[in-house]
Amino acid sequence: MKLGRLNHIGVATPSIEDSIAHYREVMGATKIHTPFDLEAQGVKVCFVDTPAHSTGSGSSDSGGTQIELIEPLGPDSPLTNFLEKNPLGGQHHVCFEVPDIEDARKEFEELGKRILGPTRIGAHGTPIFFVHPKDMQGMLTEIMETPKEGTHWSN
Amino acid sequence: MKLGRLNHIGVATPSIEDSIAHYREVMGATKIHTPFDLEAQGVKVCFVDTPAHSTGSGSSDSGGTQIELIEPLGPDSPLTNFLEKNPLGGQHHVCFEVPDIEDARKEFEELGKRILGPTRIGAHGTPIFFVHPKDMQGMLTEIMETPKEGTHWSN
Repeated sequence: MKLGRLNHIGVATPSIEDSIAHYREVMGATKIHTPFDLEAQGVKVCFVDTPAHSTGSGSSDSGGTQIELIEPLGPDSPLTNFLEKNPLGGQHHVCFEVPDIEDARKEFEELGKRILGPTRIGAHGTPIFFVHPKDMQGMLTEIMETPKEGTHWSN
Repeated sequence: MKLGRLNHIGVATPSIEDSIAHYREVMGATKIHTPFDLEAQGVKVCFVDTPAHSTGSGSSDSGGTQIELIEPLGPDSPLTNFLEKNPLGGQHHVCFEVPDIEDARKEFEELGKRILGPTRIGAHGTPIFFVHPKDMQGMLTEIMETPKEGTHWSN
């Protein structure tokens, strides 16, 4: 495959509400999307946009790699264990875009990389899968098909 | 402050050489910079570019958030402890750009955020400082002044 865009970094948090306040008040984020439940993954999700280029006249506050805040939906969430080890939250996964999810899945399988579960619909509404951190230099890695309309998404 | 560009994610690795092979052969990275020693920080550094937009005709392989591979320079490196806990490596820090490092430092200080050490020159040759992960939702956070020539850097 060819390395695609770093769509987002997944950041676990015990409270999306608190994290939104942090990104707005401390970090100065201006484009914070509406949180929503992604029940299939057992998480509540909120995207925070970052600018594609340095802020300045004429630049946009969006278009860069997003921060995907994720909070457990109940005690059976796959995030529960992570937050027990990291009660403040922290960096949970990285997500790269690919043009075709099935081609990418086949390539990772042929390389002997352990794929975690079936290909499913992710937070951006396109197919995704996760690859085991032990096969990815210690990083839980999400592979996501680029949205057809382009790279930028909003809700 | 106003949220700036996510310049890079810092990824610890026990071997930059192995990581370069991973990013080239598994992830398909095409723009991998020359590794160099950043002795003041006790690390060897290698930047891997990601595209700013989905790969396709006319797009560039650079311009997106970079992956900063960091390997300890000797046993006294601040990374040694991280790699003892995470022998395969993994996500170590995030780095956001700001237009003026002293203004940003003052703002973090006024918010009561613990800044780790003095402002110093970082891997991109501009002033940086780190903020304590316990004050930043569990993420070690680097704040970096945007290079004057623009946001894109190469060596």
